[in-house]
This record gives sequence, C-alpha cells and structure tokens, in this order.
Amino acid sequence: MDKILRINMSAAGGPQQSTEAAGEYAALGGRATTSMIVGKEVPPDCHPLSAENKLVIAPGMLSGTAAAISGRISVGCKSPLTGGIKESNAGGQAAQVLARLGYAAIVIEGQPAGDDLYKIHINKDRVEISVDNSNKLLDNYPLIAKLQKEYGDKVAYMSIGTAGERLMASASIACTDPELRPTRHCGRGGVGAVMGSKKVKVIILDDAGCSNRAPKDAERFKTANRAFVEGIRKHPVSGEGLPAYGTNVLTNVLNEAGGYPTRNFKSGQFEGATKISGESQAELEISRGGKATHGCHRGCVIQCSGIYNDKDGNYLTKQPEYETVWSHGGHCGISDLDTIATLDYWDDNVGVDTIEMGVAIGVAMDGGVIEFGDGKGAVSLLRDEVAKGTPLGRILGGGAGMVGKAFGVTRVPVVKNQALPAYDPRTVQGIGVTYATSTMGADHTAGYAVATNILKVGGDVDPLKPEGQVELSRNLQIATTAIDSTGLCLFIAFPILDQPETFQSLLDLLGGFYGIEMTGDDVVALGKNVLSVEREFNKAAGFGPADDRLPSFFQSEKLPPHNLTFGVTDEELDEVYNW
Amino acid sequence: MDKILRINMSAAGGPQQSTEAAGEYAALGGRATTSMIVGKEVPPDCHPLSAENKLVIAPGMLSGTAAAISGRISVGCKSPLTGGIKESNAGGQAAQVLARLGYAAIVIEGQPAGDDLYKIHINKDRVEISVDNSNKLLDNYPLIAKLQKEYGDKVAYMSIGTAGERLMASASIACTDPELRPTRHCGRGGVGAVMGSKKVKVIILDDAGCSNRAPKDAERFKTANRAFVEGIRKHPVSGEGLPAYGTNVLTNVLNEAGGYPTRNFKSGQFEGATKISGESQAELEISRGGKATHGCHRGCVIQCSGIYNDKDGNYLTKQPEYETVWSHGGHCGISDLDTIATLDYWDDNVGVDTIEMGVAIGVAMDGGVIEFGDGKGAVSLLRDEVAKGTPLGRILGGGAGMVGKAFGVTRVPVVKNQALPAYDPRTVQGIGVTYATSTMGADHTAGYAVATNILKVGGDVDPLKPEGQVELSRNLQIATTAIDSTGLCLFIAFPILDQPETFQSLLDLLGGFYGIEMTGDDVVALGKNVLSVEREFNKAAGFGPADDRLPSFFQSEKLPPHNLTFGVTDEELDEVYNW
Repeated sequence: MDKILRINMSAAGGPQQSTEAAGEYAALGGRATTSMIVGKEVPPDCHPLSAENKLVIAPGMLSGTAAAISGRISVGCKSPLTGGIKESNAGGQAAQVLARLGYAAIVIEGQPAGDDLYKIHINKDRVEISVDNSNKLLDNYPLIAKLQKEYGDKVAYMSIGTAGERLMASASIACTDPELRPTRHCGRGGVGAVMGSKKVKVIILDDAGCSNRAPKDAERFKTANRAFVEGIRKHPVSGEGLPAYGTNVLTNVLNEAGGYPTRNFKSGQFEGATKISGESQAELEISRGGKATHGCHRGCVIQCSGIYNDKDGNYLTKQPEYETVWSHGGHCGISDLDTIATLDYWDDNVGVDTIEMGVAIGVAMDGGVIEFGDGKGAVSLLRDEVAKGTPLGRILGGGAGMVGKAFGVTRVPVVKNQALPAYDPRTVQGIGVTYATSTMGADHTAGYAVATNILKVGGDVDPLKPEGQVELSRNLQIATTAIDSTGLCLFIAFPILDQPETFQSLLDLLGGFYGIEMTGDDVVALGKNVLSVEREFNKAAGFGPADDRLPSFFQSEKLPPHNLTFGVTDEELDEVYNW
Repeated sequence: MDKILRINMSAAGGPQQSTEAAGEYAALGGRATTSMIVGKEVPPDCHPLSAENKLVIAPGMLSGTAAAISGRISVGCKSPLTGGIKESNAGGQAAQVLARLGYAAIVIEGQPAGDDLYKIHINKDRVEISVDNSNKLLDNYPLIAKLQKEYGDKVAYMSIGTAGERLMASASIACTDPELRPTRHCGRGGVGAVMGSKKVKVIILDDAGCSNRAPKDAERFKTANRAFVEGIRKHPVSGEGLPAYGTNVLTNVLNEAGGYPTRNFKSGQFEGATKISGESQAELEISRGGKATHGCHRGCVIQCSGIYNDKDGNYLTKQPEYETVWSHGGHCGISDLDTIATLDYWDDNVGVDTIEMGVAIGVAMDGGVIEFGDGKGAVSLLRDEVAKGTPLGRILGGGAGMVGKAFGVTRVPVVKNQALPAYDPRTVQGIGVTYATSTMGADHTAGYAVATNILKVGGDVDPLKPEGQVELSRNLQIATTAIDSTGLCLFIAFPILDQPETFQSLLDLLGGFYGIEMTGDDVVALGKNVLSVEREFNKAAGFGPADDRLPSFFQSEKLPPHNLTFGVTDEELDEVYNW
C-alpha cells in the first residue's frame, strides 16, 4: 500500500490515470485516508455530484495482511445526502484485494462529458479504464453475473446499481462477498451516486499474482494475531451471539429494552418483533438449507452473516442485518421475514442503503403513500418505483428527508438529512448523542453507545438517563474513527472494550505490522485527528450547532413504554467535541 | 388596527379564537409585525409544518387608510422551503379590508387533529371558524367562484389551492383583486403550505360597515398623500413604464444588458426575448380586448397589472409579471406568450409561487425530464402533475432544490433553497449580493439592486463589477424591510430613491397618520431592527455564513455575453450585516 492511483475522469480525450507515492497516507488507511484526502482536496462548498467532488476508496491499515477480520473498505467523498463529509465502509473482498494490489487509495476525480459509462479494471500489471455501455442500467446481481463471464470469480467487484446511475442520494456501492454476491455495501450517504456522477459503473479488482502484505515484525504480528482471534472468540457477543444469530440477535434485545423504534418512531416495542428476530431468522435459514453463519470476506473469524433462501430453497439474499430487518420490519410495521428478505435483495440489487430506504418507506407510510404493515406495497415501492427510477422512486431514493418534504410529513427521523438507525434515542440516550453529533449524520456505527447502554459492554451507563452519555459517545466516536481506519470490522469493539488483553493484542497487531510502538494514546490521537478534519470540512460546508441536534419530536413526544423524551441538552451536545 | 386576532387550531373541541390589544405591534405593520411575532413566538428549530409554527397575517402601517397604493399584505412564518424566517407579501384587496376591520394581525397557531378543512369568516361583528369540507381539493379559481355565491363580491379572499392543501413547499396564499380574481399571491417560501398545515383553506374578509382608518393629523396626511401621488406619477418608471407595460417592461431591458438568465442560467441573453417582452405583451392584450393597465387593489396609482385574454377574447389570467414571464419563458427556453399565460393561470389556480415553479421546471429540463423549449410539456407538468399531486408533481411542487436532488442536477439556482429570480448575478452583481445574503433566501424584492445597477435609479453602480455592491445591497435591504412594513407597494422605491421630495412626502404620510415626527433615520432604524430579528431567527434555525452564498457555479461558469463570474468575495458578503 505504497501508492495512490488517481483517475481523472474529466481529462480531454478520456479518463487519465496516474500513480503517485502514498506519502503521508502510507501509514494510514480506511477512514483516516479517505477523510484526510477529502478534507484536503474537495472544496466543502462544491456540489456533491459535480466534477469538483472526489471519490476516495481506501483499504484499512491492516487490510491485505494476515490479520484476522481486516476486510473493511472505506469510501469517502462529500455526501449528496448530508452535504457534509462522508466515509462509508463495507466488508466483502475488495479491501483485501485492493491492499494486496498495493494501493493505499484510489482517487476518482473530475467528471466525463457525455453519457458513456466506464469500468475500471485493476490487476498487478495495469489499470484499464474503458467505456462499456453494455452495463448501463443493470442492477448489481445481473451486472456481476455478466461481469463474471468476462473477469471470472477470482476477483472482487465494487459496483453501483441503477440507483447510483440515477444519482439517488441513498445509492450505495456494492462489494462482492467471497462467493461473488454483491451484498456488502458502502451504504450510507449516497456514495453510490458520487460514483455514478463520475460515470464509473464498476471497479474490477484482480490480485492474481499478489501476496499478502508483509509485516515489519513477523513474529510479533503473528503472536498478536493469535491472541486477537482468541479474544474475539471468547467474548460472548463476537464469539457466540453474532456467529449464531447475526446482527439480528439485537431485535429481541432492543425490543425488550423498549428501544426498538416502531412505525416511524411512535413506540419502542413492536408486537411482531419475535417473528423477525435473529433467533427466528436463523431457524428459518437453516430449515431452508441456507446458512445462519457465514463470513462476508475471507479471514473473518466472527461470521455474523448468513444465507437466506426462499421457500423453495433457492438463494434469495444474504442474511438481512439487524438494521435492515428493523428498517423494513418494525419501522414499517412489517413482521414477515420473507418480505424483509425480498426488500433486502432489492436494496442490494438496485444499490441503495437499507437503512435509508427502509426509513424512507416508513416515512412514506406516515405520509399516507401506503399503509403501515403493507409488505406487498413496500416491495412494490422498491421494485416497481425505485428500481425503475419513476418519480416516486426518485423521491424514495432521495432518502427519508426527501420523502418527508414531498409528502409534508413532520416527523422525519433524520440528522443532517441522514436517516436514524434502529435504536430510539429516547430509550438509548447515548446513541442519541452519537446520532446528533456525528460528522456523518445519524449513524449508529459512528459511536455505538448501544454497547454500553444496553449490552453492558465497556461499562454500564443507564440508557434511560442523559447522565454520562456525552462522555460515552465522545469516547466511542474517537475510538471508532480509529477502528474505521484499521480495516478491522467494528465488531472487534466488543472484545477490545471488555478485555484489556485483546485491546493490547490489537495494538501489537498494528505495532508488529508497521514496526512501531503503538499505545492507546496513539489510537485516541488518530481518532481525534480524523474527526477534527471531518468537523472542519462540515463547518466549511455550512454545518453549525443547529445541525448537531435530533429532530425536535424526540424532545416533545414521549416514547412508550418508558414514556421518556431525549434528555441530553443542547449545551451538553455542544460539548462532545470539546476534548 | 388596535387588536390582534389569535386562532388556536389545536384547541380541544375545535379552533378557539381570542382577541388581544395590539400592544407593541400597534405602531407597526406588515413585515415588521410578522417578523417580530414569528421571532418572538416560533421556535426556530420547529418543523415548519408542525403545530409549533405560526402563520401571521398583517396589513401594512398605512393599509386601510386613504394613502395611495397601500394595499400590501404580509404573511410570516417559518418557511417550509428555506427553513428560515419568511415574510411574503402581496397586493390585492386583503390588506385594506383587514386593516379597516381593525386587525394589526391574525395569528393562526397550532394544528387540528383529523382531516377537516376550515374556513375563517371575519366581519365587523364577529369571527367565525367553521369546518367546510366541500372546499377540499378545490383550486383557487373554482374555490373563489364557489365562495362568491355564499359571501358575495364585496369581500376579500385569502385562499390556498391544492398545492397548499398538499403541503408543497412552493405553495402560495392567493389574495383576490378588486374583481375577485385570485391572482395576487404571497408566493415565496411556501406560506401556503403552512396555511394548509393549519387546515385553513380560506379566510373571508368582509369590511362592510367599516371605515377607512383615520389619520391623527388629517391635513398633513392629505397634503402628503397628494405630493406622494404626484411624485409617483412623475417618475418615468412608476409613472410611465410600469403603467404602460407592467413589470414585463424589464424583459427587453435585462436582455439587452445581458443579465436575462436563459435556459437555467446558461446565457444572459434569450433569442426569444422580444416575443415575450412587455411591449409585445401589452400589444397582444389590447388587441384581444384585455387590458395592459390594471390595478391589483383599489387605491393603486401605478396600475402595473393588466388582463390577459386568450385568442377568443376570453379572460385567461391577469397580466403575467416579468418574473413569471422569465421563469416560464427565457429560463425554460419558451418564447410563446400564450403558453406563459397558461402557466401563469395554473400557478395562480393551483396556488404556487410562479418563480419557484418556473425555475423548478427549468431545472427539470436541465435534468432531462422534458426538453428546453417544450411549452406543451411545461403546461402538462403543471396541470397534469403538480395540480394533481402526482409524485412528479410533488417533486416540482417541492421547488427547484428538490427537483435538483431528485434528478441529480448540479446546476441548481437556489439560495437557502429558494429559487433565484430573473436577474443573473454575474451581470447584475448587486442583486447577487441580495440573493446571497437576504434573510429570505434568493429574493429580488429584498433589496432590488437592479434599480441602481441597471435602471440607474438611486444612483449608478456598475452592474458588471463587484465594487460598491455590498453597500448598495445593504442599504436597499434595510430600506426595503421598512417599506415592506408600511403596506406600500415596493414600486414607490423608484420615486423615493430618485426624488427627495417624494421620500419626504412618504415620511409626512407616516408622520401625519400616526401624529409623530418621522425621519429617514427612523426608517433605517426600523429596517435594521426587523432585519436583526430575522437574522437572529435564521441563526438559531441553523443558518451561518455558508448559507449566505450563491451556488458555486456562479463563481466557476462565465456567463455570455459578458463572460463574467460573480465577483463579490465571501468576505465581502459577510460584511452586509456589519452596519
């Protein structure tokens, strides 16, 4: 990872590529790399879909090494959804392959004139950027099936569906899993629309002939990796709950806690929760010959995913995540797993963020477009409207905020115009602080206070009270920003928060690879540094304190069953970045 | 105007009314009253369509008196379009009637549960608020025709069409002219959607039995009024150009100056300008038995409006304003007056801002929805989509910004999400400062620097250069805010800027009416005071320096024929409110 590939899509005579030394980005990765490059090179006031924006793709610091679970890839840009900086990361094979190819980042800049659609093929010998209009308006599954015939199954694909081509603000970038399914998405913030605005349909990454990246101190690295894996396997969340039931293990937990946002955040409990829980889902998957345990990339030691087959035992989609099951399920009053799985398939196929799309559909239900609980209607909205780019599809594809504006809905759960995920901030007050203040817009992964509020990982902060939430969220946001830079899956947070020796093995893993001494302070400094760059960008893009707030209905409407409002004050929220 | 009527639409058991003394608002009017009440009573972070927002309706300081041309009515609220404070004013009969009824303001607050639609009938004896669902989903023309059978033609109506009922962010409030046509609109910022969110379809104002408001110093007032009228009549703009050709006299002027934004701000000159100019329009109107000169309210001494008949000599619409002829004409590449007049009719009927709707259609053309120049397509978008509330209609009805987001258009001419009017800021740099910095979003009336830049009224500041534009815009914004409070038509600005004796007669008019001494400094103090309240509101609603900017393409794309970009720097823009 000693070089950066730049592709100028504006160049006269067609896209031009150049390779430069990674320089200051050589010891960085993931979110640190994308946010530093975006912060330095993208004008904060530019239109996110214009030539001035850049799409930065970066594997993590440990991607492409033998380090366990190091397959996260980060994509950064100015977000068409939030108008602020964006880093969205995903699993799948892309990070490992790109890192083994030696790239610290791909920077796609400019914008071609005309309507041609490009593909980018990268292998160890060359980078080929070519027009391929035969890929136009293909969704992800048919696109990857078509490309496999040309490029085989030993490569990784990063692609956009029709949502990205149509520049929808909820459009994602799909990364293929080990079996070449386009199921792992850089979902949030519309990064797929930015790729679409560059007219890049797909990036084919082929690491044939490449080796794993070699650590500076092989022995230390190997020892640390063994301890790290052991730490992950012995923690109840990463070692038991996630492998057995996937992220959807949370449905019952959150529902019992009264923090499961139901029918557009009107209640904290859903009567249909058990039917769509991780436990029910795993049972169904196994009974149909699917899998309840599956890794999104080679080298994953948690295997929180799965394979969801239809009634006839044929592959329908990967195991829907908790956030998806919630956004298309409880949030919409839908309690049928097959309906949710069908929606998950269409999200992946069209290439949209499952959180944004599910929340958008729920807001549309609140606006009377269809009824809450109408599963067939929800599928039709996605398959017949979003996938076809109809005007209604474009409203939904524009995200929950746009749906609210189009239909005059006043209860719109967004921060910085990005939809809230699956935890009600009135019952899980710590995550409310993260939603409000994250540089990314409402994002549970930006500082997952649910861990400490509900799962009692990394301590115990009462989820129902405002006390201690700002400090909790701040510390988690700093730590997460660093983890998002390593390429390691965020689920390592459970063992490293609870087990000091596993945190030490993470430090040793990084230290052993780069041949440096790494302390907890270094991790914190990295996190703060990246967050500061992101916050500076957002400020220049026009964000101020009023943007670090939840929608006012979280203060005025009490959520059953606890009948609480969000209690963290504006003044306290403004303290999150005072460190 | 010694009382304020409050109507609480949230009250249990149905809307409740109360009357209170005007108090601090007794000596105010128009924009001063609406902005002061909104600033004091509306939470800046509330959802504009929620119960927390208030709709404030206020006649001007001189409305309901014998003062000439004093028929402007102001409507204020938090804007669903901009998210900031909004004052939108219109002509028509409402201001005079409401003032004679003695109300300094009507404040409509709260929001009823359920789907009932209300009407409010106010006469000298009582205020009646009643459910009338027979008015549901009627557009303005059929609505007023229906209401005339019940309430006659000696009243003034303020109503919303279907756009307001559907909560579209471009929805206007229509005020009837002397012949009961719903043609004078509080157009900008979606005030009609706020009225719709309160479930108020129409306000019927009946001043039978009321008299003109009596001045404190009748003789001084009468003398001043005479001099004032004389001043208006002797100025070439208000005495000749506007009466003869209406506001559309500007088409040829701006086109010759190269500041006529054509095909979504891609050129400053339109090859079809002459065909749709005020001169052509007046000739056509007269030839068809319409009128090229007509007043929007009794007491108007300029008479800049007219009556536009169709080919068969039947009434089609009022004379389309310059801004409308531009937004539906040059901006969309349309050069047919009948098409533009048809669009004007539909704007008035559905109840949408003609600027926002025209710009939205032009942005949709840029996004490939229909072709530039497609007049039939444009009519269809308005009549078959917006008027019917289809998804595409809701995108258009959401304004130019929403169209840009839905179709991924990067060149979207909005400030604070409000569409730019009919003067390109690269050729008329002073108006660019007003667009960027007005508390209202892009609004030519907020500080009409075109007067001094192009018409050479009130001095001469070179329109092509950035020098002097900040001071010009600042002074005009302050003066305009005061004028918007008087109830006087903004077109008095031409004579009062050029003729010191006419400005003095304005001061005497106010002084004579209120029995006080009024100086130019008092006018400036009033303007600054109101602007400060508005700016404070916007700041609390989340606006900062980045919101006081034009879209970046005005800095990066040169406009033919002068091939200039907007040259006023960000630092200079930030000086507008440093007085």
